[in-house]
Amino acid sequence: MQKIQKYIDYVNLSLSRISIENNHPKELYIPIKYSLDLGGKRIRPALLLLANDLFGGKDENAIEAAMAVEIFHNFTLIHDDIMDNAPLRRGQPTVYKKWNSTVAILSGDVMFAQSVQHLIKSKTIHLAEILDIFSQTAIEVCEGQQIDMNFETQKKVSIEEYLKMIELKTSVLLAASLKIGAIIGDSGTENANHIYEFGKNLGIAFQLMDDVLDLYGNPKTFGKQVGGDIISNKKTFLLLKAVELAKGEQKNELEFCLNSSVIDNESKIKRVTKIFDSLQIKQHAETEMNHFFNSAISHLDSIEAPSEKKKVFEDFAKSLMLRVN
Amino acid sequence: MQKIQKYIDYVNLSLSRISIENNHPKELYIPIKYSLDLGGKRIRPALLLLANDLFGGKDENAIEAAMAVEIFHNFTLIHDDIMDNAPLRRGQPTVYKKWNSTVAILSGDVMFAQSVQHLIKSKTIHLAEILDIFSQTAIEVCEGQQIDMNFETQKKVSIEEYLKMIELKTSVLLAASLKIGAIIGDSGTENANHIYEFGKNLGIAFQLMDDVLDLYGNPKTFGKQVGGDIISNKKTFLLLKAVELAKGEQKNELEFCLNSSVIDNESKIKRVTKIFDSLQIKQHAETEMNHFFNSAISHLDSIEAPSEKKKVFEDFAKSLMLRVN
Repeated sequence: MQKIQKYIDYVNLSLSRISIENNHPKELYIPIKYSLDLGGKRIRPALLLLANDLFGGKDENAIEAAMAVEIFHNFTLIHDDIMDNAPLRRGQPTVYKKWNSTVAILSGDVMFAQSVQHLIKSKTIHLAEILDIFSQTAIEVCEGQQIDMNFETQKKVSIEEYLKMIELKTSVLLAASLKIGAIIGDSGTENANHIYEFGKNLGIAFQLMDDVLDLYGNPKTFGKQVGGDIISNKKTFLLLKAVELAKGEQKNELEFCLNSSVIDNESKIKRVTKIFDSLQIKQHAETEMNHFFNSAISHLDSIEAPSEKKKVFEDFAKSLMLRVN
Repeated sequence: MQKIQKYIDYVNLSLSRISIENNHPKELYIPIKYSLDLGGKRIRPALLLLANDLFGGKDENAIEAAMAVEIFHNFTLIHDDIMDNAPLRRGQPTVYKKWNSTVAILSGDVMFAQSVQHLIKSKTIHLAEILDIFSQTAIEVCEGQQIDMNFETQKKVSIEEYLKMIELKTSVLLAASLKIGAIIGDSGTENANHIYEFGKNLGIAFQLMDDVLDLYGNPKTFGKQVGGDIISNKKTFLLLKAVELAKGEQKNELEFCLNSSVIDNESKIKRVTKIFDSLQIKQHAETEMNHFFNSAISHLDSIEAPSEKKKVFEDFAKSLMLRVN
């Protein structure tokens, strides 16, 4: 884990060195700087550097690509926040709220272009390949966001559709970051594909755990309203599984809770949780989560690389799954 | 001109072959297809192919790059239309009006990523170079749009700022298209730079002529409301030059026309035109236009390429300047 922290620091240092002093107009560049300065865990770029290192690549060959995926990620957040009317991001006003949607659209677009600029500065002979992964991933992330938006008005969402949505919306960028790092480190195609699958499956497991924690997390450490997803009728794995399994009286009760305008939040959470518990929804989610987690680990096992270096990835994956909030 | 038409047809054919049948979700891909099917003159991709041909490049090496610049251009239009609240584009509802701004943001983002995908399919050893030009140009186009939006609330805009804005917002993409085509055709650096400057200067001249035609164009062939820029107080070269030159009584009269809420459109156009005429604004604009046009031609002259092929570019440039609407 120390190694990941080292890379997180390296990414933060590199991002902090981006100067906007000579950039004009300021209306475009101040929000970009603001967005990057808001922080974030920098997991994707750190894992990109770690994947490059896994195959013996030098850090300086991959740092520009690492910055590219982080800038790209922040571009997607800026545009998503417009679409979701989100007032806050990391406890601060979103770009769209602090300025306006025009500024948010355009500064996001610039960040997308900047991420391409950083990517092509990577020291690699595989430029066409990493750009292919990058642009394909960019498209998939947008598809995931659109599918997620569709869910809001879509009456019936299957578990399969849900899993595809979280794969596209959150997992593929993690997976692509790992794969791009591996390719810059000259991993070869097979290893690059395995690390992609490691990241993709881990990302899905992580999102499923997020769904579980929203309701079953420790209220003291969770930081958000426990049961927030239930209050907003969010189509998470838990709810979709319950809709799939509930029959008879339970089904009526669930539908009442989802559609009633008179029920208060506290009793809504209580009554829905009762249904979830009797249908063993938490266990179903954990089974699914373990399936994806084990699949991730099995792809990690298949990678040809020094086992002490692979251990860092395994430890990281386990630490993600052990978090309590 | 026949050669340009041949390339326009080639671009249209290639774009029409894009299938969205296997793409999901449809909410994202139907607007993309709609946007590309709306038409447009396809000048940028045609000139890219022509520039590649100028240096003996094969058409099939550059067609993907040509599609890239056209898709990128349409992406910028989709996002611009949101920011400008524009209801119509080429006589049809804009993507943002026909669907909504979420769809317009996301399908635009996908088109940006698609343009990168097409670009990397170009058959060239200069991939890093064309991607560098492309991403830098993408940033500049956004800067131009932001500067243009700033003008709406900015009290004083200099001619210099205005020329920079039109350079960024409209000229650099034309210039970059030519340069990318030239590089794929193995033009060498100097020729690529000259053709870039040819496109940049021609684009500025073209935009200045657009400003002139808005007021002085033939009402029978112009197609838009003559004097529309005056009615909306649009900061064009004509108005900015008049603001710069008007003194005393004329200055007061101009300010009255710009700020009065009682003056009707017809007399506003009449009174402002009278000021323009007495300040010889049209002549000033034409002088400036000729300056950029001549600069474009002088860069064309400096290009080392067969003169009969260069003639096509010169004829095209002249035809642009001769249009009456």
